[in-house]
Amino acid sequence: MEPATTEQRKLSRSWGSGRWLTQSEPLDRTIGNLHIQTVQIVLAAIKRQRIPEGARMPSTRAIAESLGISRNTAKRAVEILVEQGVLASRNRSGTYLASSAHPEFAEDTSDDSDDIVEWPRRFTLKLNSESELPTIRPTYASFLYGQFDASIFPIGRWRECERSALSVSEIQNWGKDVVDEDDSLLIEQLRSEVLPRHGILARPENILITLGGQQGRYLVSQLFGGAETISGIEHPGMPDMAKMLDLSRTRVRPLALDEDGVILGEQMRGCNTVFLTCGHQCPTTAVMSHERRAALLDQAHRDDFIVVEDTFETEIFAEGKYPPAMKSLPGSERVIHIASLSKLIAPGLRIGYVIAHPSVIAKMRALRRLIHRHPPGNNQRALAIFIERGYYRAFLRRAQAVMSERQDAMATALRRHFPGADWRHCDGASTFWMKVPDGVGSRALAASAAARGVLVEPGGRYFHKEDGRDDWVRLSVSSIVASRIEDGIRRFAEAHRDCVSRL
Amino acid sequence: MEPATTEQRKLSRSWGSGRWLTQSEPLDRTIGNLHIQTVQIVLAAIKRQRIPEGARMPSTRAIAESLGISRNTAKRAVEILVEQGVLASRNRSGTYLASSAHPEFAEDTSDDSDDIVEWPRRFTLKLNSESELPTIRPTYASFLYGQFDASIFPIGRWRECERSALSVSEIQNWGKDVVDEDDSLLIEQLRSEVLPRHGILARPENILITLGGQQGRYLVSQLFGGAETISGIEHPGMPDMAKMLDLSRTRVRPLALDEDGVILGEQMRGCNTVFLTCGHQCPTTAVMSHERRAALLDQAHRDDFIVVEDTFETEIFAEGKYPPAMKSLPGSERVIHIASLSKLIAPGLRIGYVIAHPSVIAKMRALRRLIHRHPPGNNQRALAIFIERGYYRAFLRRAQAVMSERQDAMATALRRHFPGADWRHCDGASTFWMKVPDGVGSRALAASAAARGVLVEPGGRYFHKEDGRDDWVRLSVSSIVASRIEDGIRRFAEAHRDCVSRL
Repeated sequence: MEPATTEQRKLSRSWGSGRWLTQSEPLDRTIGNLHIQTVQIVLAAIKRQRIPEGARMPSTRAIAESLGISRNTAKRAVEILVEQGVLASRNRSGTYLASSAHPEFAEDTSDDSDDIVEWPRRFTLKLNSESELPTIRPTYASFLYGQFDASIFPIGRWRECERSALSVSEIQNWGKDVVDEDDSLLIEQLRSEVLPRHGILARPENILITLGGQQGRYLVSQLFGGAETISGIEHPGMPDMAKMLDLSRTRVRPLALDEDGVILGEQMRGCNTVFLTCGHQCPTTAVMSHERRAALLDQAHRDDFIVVEDTFETEIFAEGKYPPAMKSLPGSERVIHIASLSKLIAPGLRIGYVIAHPSVIAKMRALRRLIHRHPPGNNQRALAIFIERGYYRAFLRRAQAVMSERQDAMATALRRHFPGADWRHCDGASTFWMKVPDGVGSRALAASAAARGVLVEPGGRYFHKEDGRDDWVRLSVSSIVASRIEDGIRRFAEAHRDCVSRL
Repeated sequence: MEPATTEQRKLSRSWGSGRWLTQSEPLDRTIGNLHIQTVQIVLAAIKRQRIPEGARMPSTRAIAESLGISRNTAKRAVEILVEQGVLASRNRSGTYLASSAHPEFAEDTSDDSDDIVEWPRRFTLKLNSESELPTIRPTYASFLYGQFDASIFPIGRWRECERSALSVSEIQNWGKDVVDEDDSLLIEQLRSEVLPRHGILARPENILITLGGQQGRYLVSQLFGGAETISGIEHPGMPDMAKMLDLSRTRVRPLALDEDGVILGEQMRGCNTVFLTCGHQCPTTAVMSHERRAALLDQAHRDDFIVVEDTFETEIFAEGKYPPAMKSLPGSERVIHIASLSKLIAPGLRIGYVIAHPSVIAKMRALRRLIHRHPPGNNQRALAIFIERGYYRAFLRRAQAVMSERQDAMATALRRHFPGADWRHCDGASTFWMKVPDGVGSRALAASAAARGVLVEPGGRYFHKEDGRDDWVRLSVSSIVASRIEDGIRRFAEAHRDCVSRL
């Protein structure tokens, strides 16, 4: 053993007692992971107190006394810290602070130097980088779409499936870099349990797993887009479509709608692709009839365009009530079918799929590989198990029942508090589309509602930017319990009256 | 109660006994989820036997007897099936097969009709859709890179973190569609625990979470690419780089290397961006010295190009042994730093990040939003917790120790079995880069090795396609235990001798 230097002795004296730990945040004894909390307290204290490298650390007994925990808990914490390289044992004389605990971490010297590099002139892609969604505030009633709803998320069953996906034999399947492949169990479950509900028969080579519906749309727009092509998109329609097509310099043609969805005929002629949300038109919720779907496919064949069928919220439709998917009809060989699987369960999971001809799927797979290889394997496997065990089907039934109750409550409240107003809603859609009186402005209305604790979405982003339209709002019941809807709409109606009276 | 029709009575008689269940696959009683297995057996039997809608189902007692399970297990299974809508209770007279169990599922009527739609002429993006990686076979020794290694994956701790990420309060954070935001806890953990190890100081607006390093490269190539721009890429270098740059029609300039990585000077002049793996050059594993990194930044400033620093495998370097990241050096404002976080833990998780100027991050975020919105929230949160609890640091230390042992075993084996051969390896890299004698061909060598149960990667894909070079192989120790390396290399040397002797 080397003799201790004066410096070392000084270090040992000042930090060995553990008194510096008592100034820490108290432990939360209700959680039951005291050793982990102890690790965090020690790490935080080391940083806060700027304890020097080589300083002698308190014994496990001293840590236990300082924090009021058992000796065993303190031991487990020290073991973790040693394993982390924060502490080191030396010559049986106790533990010391090892160098690796000391990243020289200072705040705020990162580069914000626009002047030097002039970033804006280097971007070759013209792209608006401002987020458009309203900030979510603490609120009385949120009629915003796409938020997570803890009241219908099947947390116990999802946990069970994640746990199963984490068994050693399962990890062997999803843990590796599979380059461009999808989870084979998820593909099988889609084929046998999900797609037949929509009347779609698919082989594995017809299926690609995507990161939500958004990625399906992106891949199609990249693969079939370009300055020489024209894409028809619904108007009003999904907000990001025009921007996404801009990325591949595709020319965009807005398509007019009626109560049955997009209007067929002349306006589609000359398009190379058309992007349609026939299941529930976004945002008007119109459901395209079986007859129009068949006629659309006829026209697509005659005028030689590709139909991109985006199944926005069709899963919520009660079993058997929805018209068959376009991809299930005769003549559907020119249909590319895009769906989201995780929207209902938890949008943050980001899982969707595309059904198309094998040569289309192969190209999309190659492109996806260059973008990010493949979607995370653990989520694919957990979702596959979730479907396999019948939980997805059970969850859908429950979600349908819950959503149906909320839709009824919403329709009743709108009739009561907005008599004579123009609003659209087709059965099974979680959103309502409502006209705002001329001159009021949907943004002003939303701001006025927000001041009363009610969040609604201004509808401007569903229209072409050049139109500058601001006369519709979108109301969703996807994350508000039925019992709060009536009162939320009552408050919204008050805000509405305020706005109208100010005209 | 409505009187039963003749048809209904017939249905009841034929399926109520439960005898049709006994022909099923036997239960696996070692697993302990008998009620779930029972659900699956009933579902499979209904499909297999084409049981008609409305048929009366066996009682729970009959199911229990047929399958040799407890009455309670049968009851739980029936409850699940009722909840799924497969079975329905009617008027206390038992359960019946409900219509929803009957997707009309036939095999193989999906469209493969190239003739009708002529897909190939419609693709605007030229893209090779063939996968290039060798198929993984049962094998004696795999020296392939990027496979999952169960022996170092911290399964218990990862499970703990996924479980914590699934607490109700955590799901509220990641479950929703956050549009374009990243997990705030993961950002904080990167700033305080991961980036300081590389000497990088970053604010939240400097950071974007990506789906692995691949997505970082894709976003940069889209944002700064185009027919008017030139990108320098290492040669040999990462396989997908040239293809990815092709997508944005960027002109590609191959950059020559020496033992210290890319050679500075004339060859970089005129480039708009250069993509470099300075940490460990892929595939040669060369580590660029501190001096050359500084000189590179000087040249980047003089010649006005952007440096994309791709930190391939730098995390494996033992603490303090690696040169500081380019993003930590003076003049780094023109550096875009790309990293993978999940490569080591489990490549299938797909999590990485980009560090860059806030205006670059804002553009990348806007583009990522159009591609797929955001990376899955649950994985971001689980990884954040994994880092917060100190498990990431502990895991790195363990992985470093394991990899170091494997690298030593590999170097020893190569010296013994390939005396005088030309192979490259810098400390901390999990791969080795080896010259194949002229005329042998790396593909032929890999095939010969595979026939002996040893998998190695032919190196052709790291070179420009036009070069058609086939004279290097890549050997990785990322997923082979140290004790098997010597014998694997001995077998590989036999295959090598065979190939040479056939010349």
